[in-house]
Amino acid sequence: MNALIKAAALCAMMTLLVSCGGNDSAQGHNSGQISAGQEASAQQKVYNWKLVTTWPKNFPGLGVAPENFAKLVDRMSNGRLKVKVYAAGEIVPALEVFSAVSNGTAEMGHGAAYYWKGKMPAAPLFTSVPFGLNAQEMNGWLYHGGGLELWRELYAPYNLVPMPAGNTGIQMGGWFNKELNTIADFKGLKMRIPGLGGEVFTRAGGTAVNMPGGEIYTSLQTGVIDAAEWVAPYNDLAFGFNNVAKYYYYPGWHEPGPTIELIINKEAYQTLPDDLVAIVESAARTINQDMLDEYTSRNNAALKMLKEKGVEIRRYPDEVWNVLRETTKAVMEENANKDEMFKKVYASYDAYRKSVNAYHQISERAYYDMRD
Amino acid sequence: MNALIKAAALCAMMTLLVSCGGNDSAQGHNSGQISAGQEASAQQKVYNWKLVTTWPKNFPGLGVAPENFAKLVDRMSNGRLKVKVYAAGEIVPALEVFSAVSNGTAEMGHGAAYYWKGKMPAAPLFTSVPFGLNAQEMNGWLYHGGGLELWRELYAPYNLVPMPAGNTGIQMGGWFNKELNTIADFKGLKMRIPGLGGEVFTRAGGTAVNMPGGEIYTSLQTGVIDAAEWVAPYNDLAFGFNNVAKYYYYPGWHEPGPTIELIINKEAYQTLPDDLVAIVESAARTINQDMLDEYTSRNNAALKMLKEKGVEIRRYPDEVWNVLRETTKAVMEENANKDEMFKKVYASYDAYRKSVNAYHQISERAYYDMRD
Repeated sequence: MNALIKAAALCAMMTLLVSCGGNDSAQGHNSGQISAGQEASAQQKVYNWKLVTTWPKNFPGLGVAPENFAKLVDRMSNGRLKVKVYAAGEIVPALEVFSAVSNGTAEMGHGAAYYWKGKMPAAPLFTSVPFGLNAQEMNGWLYHGGGLELWRELYAPYNLVPMPAGNTGIQMGGWFNKELNTIADFKGLKMRIPGLGGEVFTRAGGTAVNMPGGEIYTSLQTGVIDAAEWVAPYNDLAFGFNNVAKYYYYPGWHEPGPTIELIINKEAYQTLPDDLVAIVESAARTINQDMLDEYTSRNNAALKMLKEKGVEIRRYPDEVWNVLRETTKAVMEENANKDEMFKKVYASYDAYRKSVNAYHQISERAYYDMRD
Repeated sequence: MNALIKAAALCAMMTLLVSCGGNDSAQGHNSGQISAGQEASAQQKVYNWKLVTTWPKNFPGLGVAPENFAKLVDRMSNGRLKVKVYAAGEIVPALEVFSAVSNGTAEMGHGAAYYWKGKMPAAPLFTSVPFGLNAQEMNGWLYHGGGLELWRELYAPYNLVPMPAGNTGIQMGGWFNKELNTIADFKGLKMRIPGLGGEVFTRAGGTAVNMPGGEIYTSLQTGVIDAAEWVAPYNDLAFGFNNVAKYYYYPGWHEPGPTIELIINKEAYQTLPDDLVAIVESAARTINQDMLDEYTSRNNAALKMLKEKGVEIRRYPDEVWNVLRETTKAVMEENANKDEMFKKVYASYDAYRKSVNAYHQISERAYYDMRD
């Protein structure tokens, strides 16, 4: 690129490529929903809102993001929108965040869409999909590929407006106490792995177990489970899993770029004047990027420390990987056949995945391959 | 990850990892620089600012971002900060943006740091470095690796506050009319390639030429140059380079994740009340992410169209790549030896690069390798 582009004629050609959509789609949904008179009085008002989260207070990365969001909104609104953040259990338990925001107990929530799979089978598609989009690609799909509109359509019947508000980047493939050589090694293996990844793992011969992060350490130590995935080096080192498991597998096939969500009670959101709506959406996008930046930076140092502590870093064998990939296709197809909204969202997601992958194979992938 | 973490004891361990820095470093630099009385009157005031850019009006991606920035700031500030965007040449030519914002002709500018290499040899390190950080890694370094602080230190003597405000993602390796097989094929080759990449190309046997984007098409057509890099499929297709060059090489070794910058006149910035400072920084971060999301999405469709038009997509041969990589090391070392600030910034950049690469080899890279 270069600044000195003179050819005005060429600019006309370029507009051909621009016409397929702006990037305002994610903003301004609320514009004009209150009258000018209401707007003027709304400008004076101080809003005191509650934000309930699915995380323990100040939990590294995931739990710090909503605190950063609240501080930023407070600064940008000059104190007109005060958001008080509550950890899991302070007002409602983690897995009741969705209902609490839906019914107005709190105006906002911070968590992950895949927790609400029981209510909406399509929800996990907005967190992460095995063999799916990584963080950069998720943001592309959500903001310039139609994803966010589908997400808002899915949550609308629940009186909720969702938006991205964090991403951990690709996760690790999990902790094991025996080496994986063939897919037969999954047989009888009890692994803590939730969501669509868990479905795939069970179908591939293992037994997926779902348990809170805080129980993983003891469960691995006592043999209640044989293996576990959590997040990535930064969070995994903090939990000390290296003390109770020997092998750390990569890459995380089950969660290649999990999006964290902010959900807002729709009626409460409609009472905000347009400037506060814009402030909320920009602050959410800021923490969406900031969390990824933080994980990108901290995982490196944590990986180094894990290696120094003697953890054996292992790559998933091709055979295991290939079975997981094929199994994922079957699981996704079955889910699509069982639920119309899953089918609709996955059609959009998968088309984007195929398209972006074609380009990333010759750009990001080729670059990683050749950089060093 | 999972919401139901109960082990409070573990949270104490985690704080060990959190203590090495917050993410407020990039925000609030301006806090408290005006008094409470000044703050109250500043809250009433409407600021009318000029933003000069290095791009043609509404140039796809790059030129649309400052327009989006202005709209978002207008909405978030409820019209208290009005930013009028000027294309290159409307007030000052593209390459005078830096001086114009430095001397207060305009309060803001949008462009790329590497344009100011003549003034500050270290400036290109804040855009992109051959064999350096990709977009995700650049954001990590800038926001959680000390990069932004160094950038602000570099620009401070010029009365400027810089911040990231866009990223094109990894670029393509350029357009050629003959196949590259060995490094000897560079001999006598005139290629449009600016910046540090151009230095490396010339050292590797070619002749780097710098020219505006608008002149590339005709120069390739008439044989004034033999090859050219511009951006990536989305922008390259718009320029129609497929009509005047046959081979499209990947990946872009010279610009793996160029950061676009917003620069602000420091004295003007200090007159803003804290809420508008926060609004400016969050809006910049929003367009920083949005531009990458847009390129991530649009490059795919453009690549498909280029293939349909018969463009031959070629991977750089390993031999060529290896020479470019070794040459880059030598060029970076020489630049560091000639300029203290280059040395200081590059030490930070390169340490981050080595660290993040170790993790991305087993996460992002391994995932791309195995996904399909």
